[in-house]
Amino acid sequence: MVTTLSPVDLLGDLIRCPSVTPTEGGALQLLAGLLAEAGFSVERPTFSEPGLPDVQNLYARLGTASPCLVFAGHTDVVPPGDLGGWRHPPFSGEIADGMIYGRGACDMKGGVAASVAAVLAYIDRHGPPPGSIAFLITGDEEGPAVNGTPKLLAWAEARGERFDHCLLGEPTNPDALGDMIKIGRRGSLSGSVTVQGRQGHVAYPHRAENPIPPLLHLLQALLATPLDGGTPYFDPSNLEIVSVDVGNPSTNVIPAQATGRFNIRFNDLWTPETLEAELRRRLSVAGQTARTTLDLHPCNALAFLTSPGDFTSLVAEAVTAETGRQPALSTTGGTSDARFIVSHCPVVEFGLVGQTMHAVDEAVSLADVEALTRIYERVLAVYFSR
Amino acid sequence: MVTTLSPVDLLGDLIRCPSVTPTEGGALQLLAGLLAEAGFSVERPTFSEPGLPDVQNLYARLGTASPCLVFAGHTDVVPPGDLGGWRHPPFSGEIADGMIYGRGACDMKGGVAASVAAVLAYIDRHGPPPGSIAFLITGDEEGPAVNGTPKLLAWAEARGERFDHCLLGEPTNPDALGDMIKIGRRGSLSGSVTVQGRQGHVAYPHRAENPIPPLLHLLQALLATPLDGGTPYFDPSNLEIVSVDVGNPSTNVIPAQATGRFNIRFNDLWTPETLEAELRRRLSVAGQTARTTLDLHPCNALAFLTSPGDFTSLVAEAVTAETGRQPALSTTGGTSDARFIVSHCPVVEFGLVGQTMHAVDEAVSLADVEALTRIYERVLAVYFSR
Repeated sequence: MVTTLSPVDLLGDLIRCPSVTPTEGGALQLLAGLLAEAGFSVERPTFSEPGLPDVQNLYARLGTASPCLVFAGHTDVVPPGDLGGWRHPPFSGEIADGMIYGRGACDMKGGVAASVAAVLAYIDRHGPPPGSIAFLITGDEEGPAVNGTPKLLAWAEARGERFDHCLLGEPTNPDALGDMIKIGRRGSLSGSVTVQGRQGHVAYPHRAENPIPPLLHLLQALLATPLDGGTPYFDPSNLEIVSVDVGNPSTNVIPAQATGRFNIRFNDLWTPETLEAELRRRLSVAGQTARTTLDLHPCNALAFLTSPGDFTSLVAEAVTAETGRQPALSTTGGTSDARFIVSHCPVVEFGLVGQTMHAVDEAVSLADVEALTRIYERVLAVYFSR
Repeated sequence: MVTTLSPVDLLGDLIRCPSVTPTEGGALQLLAGLLAEAGFSVERPTFSEPGLPDVQNLYARLGTASPCLVFAGHTDVVPPGDLGGWRHPPFSGEIADGMIYGRGACDMKGGVAASVAAVLAYIDRHGPPPGSIAFLITGDEEGPAVNGTPKLLAWAEARGERFDHCLLGEPTNPDALGDMIKIGRRGSLSGSVTVQGRQGHVAYPHRAENPIPPLLHLLQALLATPLDGGTPYFDPSNLEIVSVDVGNPSTNVIPAQATGRFNIRFNDLWTPETLEAELRRRLSVAGQTARTTLDLHPCNALAFLTSPGDFTSLVAEAVTAETGRQPALSTTGGTSDARFIVSHCPVVEFGLVGQTMHAVDEAVSLADVEALTRIYERVLAVYFSR
């Protein structure tokens, strides 16, 4: 019998890999070794794109038959930010007061460590699965994300790999382990509204055209009424004005141009195309002139949903059995790589408590890491027993 | 009989003095020589202020008795800007097609040249005046204007100099010589409104406080209703939002703070204090919170008016006699050094056509320079005949 891999030990080792996007930092190498040793076939494809850094990825599989349960995730992390703000260094994996500290502890090396430890424990206890277990781990979820999960999925599909269900270990719980499973995510669309005026001296406003008052009016028209009232599994779509920029340092000049930028987190009522049409309608109704431009960034995050059913119930029950909590089936918060996976198979997300993600002194509780591992093992046991 | 000084020749010589604020460039020296030769006592005080460059000025006087008519002005000019845009070099004084070209031609070396030529012609024709003629010429009207006219006036007053009426040769005509006399100017008050929010992730708006929507609302509250309906000699006061700045480059961040900046050109219904009270009232009615700040810059330009009467009529009639036009008695446009002079004596402004001031290829017509000189001479003749 193989010595049981401690998920906390593995998490510490992963944290100590300095894998700020797109640096691999030894993290995927570490996982590759563990999985190969356990009998997985392991591949480490690197993907490229002109103008972007290359990104390493990992695909591992044990078994070829259906059903295949795949654990997805990323080992890259956001930069630590202000080093002086960390009481425990960001790549230390230091343990104190029942917590393990380090960048990526909750987002999402903790989820990766728990999933690998759970799979190895499952195999150790039950032998190879009546089906397949796979890992789709990328080295770029936090960055441009072009050379990460989307290409890894395409690469796998091109090789004939098929998945039946996916569990993604992003930190889904706001406060306590068991609060929340993500069964979908909102889309994200960004853009700007620019009003072109005519520069002039502030004492001669009739010889100029101040673009700011029309812009204020148009931005308020975008904000004035809700986009929708929400859907069974989604909050109402939300538009935030994230910046307004004119950049005129002079108090005696009326500027030539003014721009407002926005981001919309949209639910399953919208596509980027229907959302654009609604924005244009609102600007038109508000009286935009020919000298107003609406520009939209390409949308790489659509809204998606894994409808509640057997798989979501399976995961929820595993969570409840371990934590005593009934997890909400949620679509709140930001987006994740699940948006790419959902076109290949149903995907559900459950991981650690995300309160400190992207912050200084990111940390998770040791008890939670161990509980999450047991939850994943429970999922495996039930999944492969049916 | 002294050879009559050509105002066009003098203007060319002044233009060729490269007197971009605060450089004297030889301009005041040139005027000092001409006036001293004509019997004026001439002083060239330099004024200083910590943190600002020293500025040369000129005070000249012929006679000691009342009434004293003073010609005010400035020889400093704004920078030429893009040299490539000038068909005739900005310090050339080139003459072409009945126009003389150069930075300061209309603003306001043309007015200075015409006033000096008119005064010398008057003395040549009539002898010394039954009263006094003075010149108050500064080397900084276009810049900080701290070491210019305000200090020159204080300096003169401290020496017991007294003035009865003042004519300031700023370019007051929008289109044609004779259009407009300025009998007052609006005040200018600048400031900003800042809303403090709380930064957060755009996908979690309830954990952040977006400062932009409240700022949009408050800026619209400042704009929503006119400040006033105007007064007999002033347009309605006008508030322009000159910039809005947040500076958030990230579409997934709700920013911490947002600021809007404004300038108000106000008429004789307001002081900076009453205007501030009104702005605070509007922000309060609009629902500003404790996290909103209104900041006002120190105001160095109050509204003022020289009530129409004998002196304004005298100047207007001289303009009409020479040009055939009935000049409007106006307070439109920006401010001028007349705002400092008005607390010492009534001041009226009349100069050249200002269309090209501060622009490339600044120029005035030779005919206008000569006509303005005759207008000033007519003013002198009538002023000293009463």
